[in-house]
Amino acid sequence: MPAPYARHRKQIEEILAAWGMPPANAASTAEVMAYADLHGIDSHGISLVPGYYTRTKQKRVNIAVTPSIVRESPVSALIDGGGGFGHVTGRLAMDIAIGKAKAAGVGISAVRNSLHFGACGFYAKMAADAGLIGMVTTSAGGVQVAPTRGAEAKLGTDPLAFAAPGRDGEPFLLDMATTTVAAGRIRNKANEGLPLPPGWVLTKAGMPSTDPEETGRGGFMTSLGGTAEGSSYKGYGLAGMVNILAACLSGASLITDPLHTKRPLQNIGHFFMAIDPGLFRDPAEFRADVVTFCDALRATKPIDPDQPVLVAGDPERANAKRRMQQGIPVGPNLLTKVRAIAEECGAPWLLGN
Amino acid sequence: MPAPYARHRKQIEEILAAWGMPPANAASTAEVMAYADLHGIDSHGISLVPGYYTRTKQKRVNIAVTPSIVRESPVSALIDGGGGFGHVTGRLAMDIAIGKAKAAGVGISAVRNSLHFGACGFYAKMAADAGLIGMVTTSAGGVQVAPTRGAEAKLGTDPLAFAAPGRDGEPFLLDMATTTVAAGRIRNKANEGLPLPPGWVLTKAGMPSTDPEETGRGGFMTSLGGTAEGSSYKGYGLAGMVNILAACLSGASLITDPLHTKRPLQNIGHFFMAIDPGLFRDPAEFRADVVTFCDALRATKPIDPDQPVLVAGDPERANAKRRMQQGIPVGPNLLTKVRAIAEECGAPWLLGN
Repeated sequence: MPAPYARHRKQIEEILAAWGMPPANAASTAEVMAYADLHGIDSHGISLVPGYYTRTKQKRVNIAVTPSIVRESPVSALIDGGGGFGHVTGRLAMDIAIGKAKAAGVGISAVRNSLHFGACGFYAKMAADAGLIGMVTTSAGGVQVAPTRGAEAKLGTDPLAFAAPGRDGEPFLLDMATTTVAAGRIRNKANEGLPLPPGWVLTKAGMPSTDPEETGRGGFMTSLGGTAEGSSYKGYGLAGMVNILAACLSGASLITDPLHTKRPLQNIGHFFMAIDPGLFRDPAEFRADVVTFCDALRATKPIDPDQPVLVAGDPERANAKRRMQQGIPVGPNLLTKVRAIAEECGAPWLLGN
Repeated sequence: MPAPYARHRKQIEEILAAWGMPPANAASTAEVMAYADLHGIDSHGISLVPGYYTRTKQKRVNIAVTPSIVRESPVSALIDGGGGFGHVTGRLAMDIAIGKAKAAGVGISAVRNSLHFGACGFYAKMAADAGLIGMVTTSAGGVQVAPTRGAEAKLGTDPLAFAAPGRDGEPFLLDMATTTVAAGRIRNKANEGLPLPPGWVLTKAGMPSTDPEETGRGGFMTSLGGTAEGSSYKGYGLAGMVNILAACLSGASLITDPLHTKRPLQNIGHFFMAIDPGLFRDPAEFRADVVTFCDALRATKPIDPDQPVLVAGDPERANAKRRMQQGIPVGPNLLTKVRAIAEECGAPWLLGN
């Protein structure tokens, strides 16, 4: 039985607090994770609890850390995440970028020494909710993508998010990995025993494959575009942009560093930018144009009348509306795992069976 | 016989000046166009002369215009392109963004009322040459791309460019349309009578096609990703980002506006951003990390030892090196067309037969 959003969120909060995360940080982190589950981004919510717990037990995260500002200007901040999970740090970094954009027109925060921070889109949406344009990138923890022409993993899923305010509560909100698909979609095909569509993965020799078990045998995920003929160099190039903004600018560990995944604390980098459209024109006119643009796209004649054309952010909002009414579904295997973790660390169990 | 770069560039300059473009503007515009030809971006150099000439004769461009600054802050400028070709305006806009980034750390120029400005990468590279990160987007003139799930063209090729300084003369330089491929690559297949790889185009009903004549029959180009299963919603989302930055922010015409292609002067918008890495860390350390990152990618074990892994900007630099030595090839049909234009407008002919 899916739990209501508030209880689902509270469950995550109780577990994080039981690990020793300070209460305010646990509440803030749980909000980011529950946002993902509410919006149907199931790879970035409660499903992260088992991996986060392993890392916590291994002391490969500073669970009680507070991020600190290292360097600052009227338009920028460099923030040290202190080796903690990145959610509290990410919210602070985007809050600072938003504050600077409101005062100076643009604000950029670069973060180093952080860890996984959940869904990029959460932070980009913060800017849009404040009436600003938001852009967010992060370096990745895992190395699983081969560059175009390559037969060796050198990159991660390397996501970026972009948001712009439109109608209240309906920002344009793009949140995408620069790979063809997320790892979770490959896992789903494997679980169902189905072949993959062409272009999703490569063998370890770099040859095309449709086997959903390929990445478990040393194969690679592909950059957006999938194949050389599908212009995978573009997805690969975007991954380069993401890493330059998130890691080179902040001084975080490079994903191409052989020690990137081996150090006790991963040094992940993030990039947060907010731009005030009022620098250029009446912000209300800007928002009206975003609305006109998005509505024109939605009004496109659809291939299938039952599958209307959507705009970035629409599918996630539809999920959130449904799940706010019906509760947040969690698969039985995951639920069992999370319950065992709650019991082990002494957190109350709120989600039923 | 391919002409040397300097003569090729001078030929373009002479033709533009013969149309009534002021001499300094003709020289500046010709430099941007010849940059594209030198770097192998043949779609954005001398091949534009016939289309630009038609537009000039139809008085659908203000050939002698000077761009003007409409609004300014320490980190931003809004620029009116005056209905001229966008190259002079684009260089001014990026120069202003660079100047502001050097003084304040970040600079953003939004341009409205402009026209086609050539290759985005030229302007992003200006920032990298100045030691800064550069990002550029532009709205498009032509409407030829259907949104994911759509059977109606609503978007253009909607390109973006991103550059970061590395080794001197070797910036990371990504310049990409957010479509699967450029229109020119479809034309090339049509010229050779070859079928297209799957995912490049759709029929006018939105069905997959491999017919290179499809777009001439009302079919559409696809967003990067090619198909729904290949995650074309990501290329489509990036096109949305490009249009919001280039058109909504500046107040240019929206590509979804039914009048976008019909007004006498198209009101194209551009976006230029420069970021000083010195806001966050020692710029030399930033550049060293970009070099380390790019070199690690280049060192990836290749699928085919004769096809080494490259980094964004490498293919274009290799073209430029070769063409600087061997001259700039122009196909016989295009050469004949350009020669006829030179004769008609009274420009000297420098390129031989």
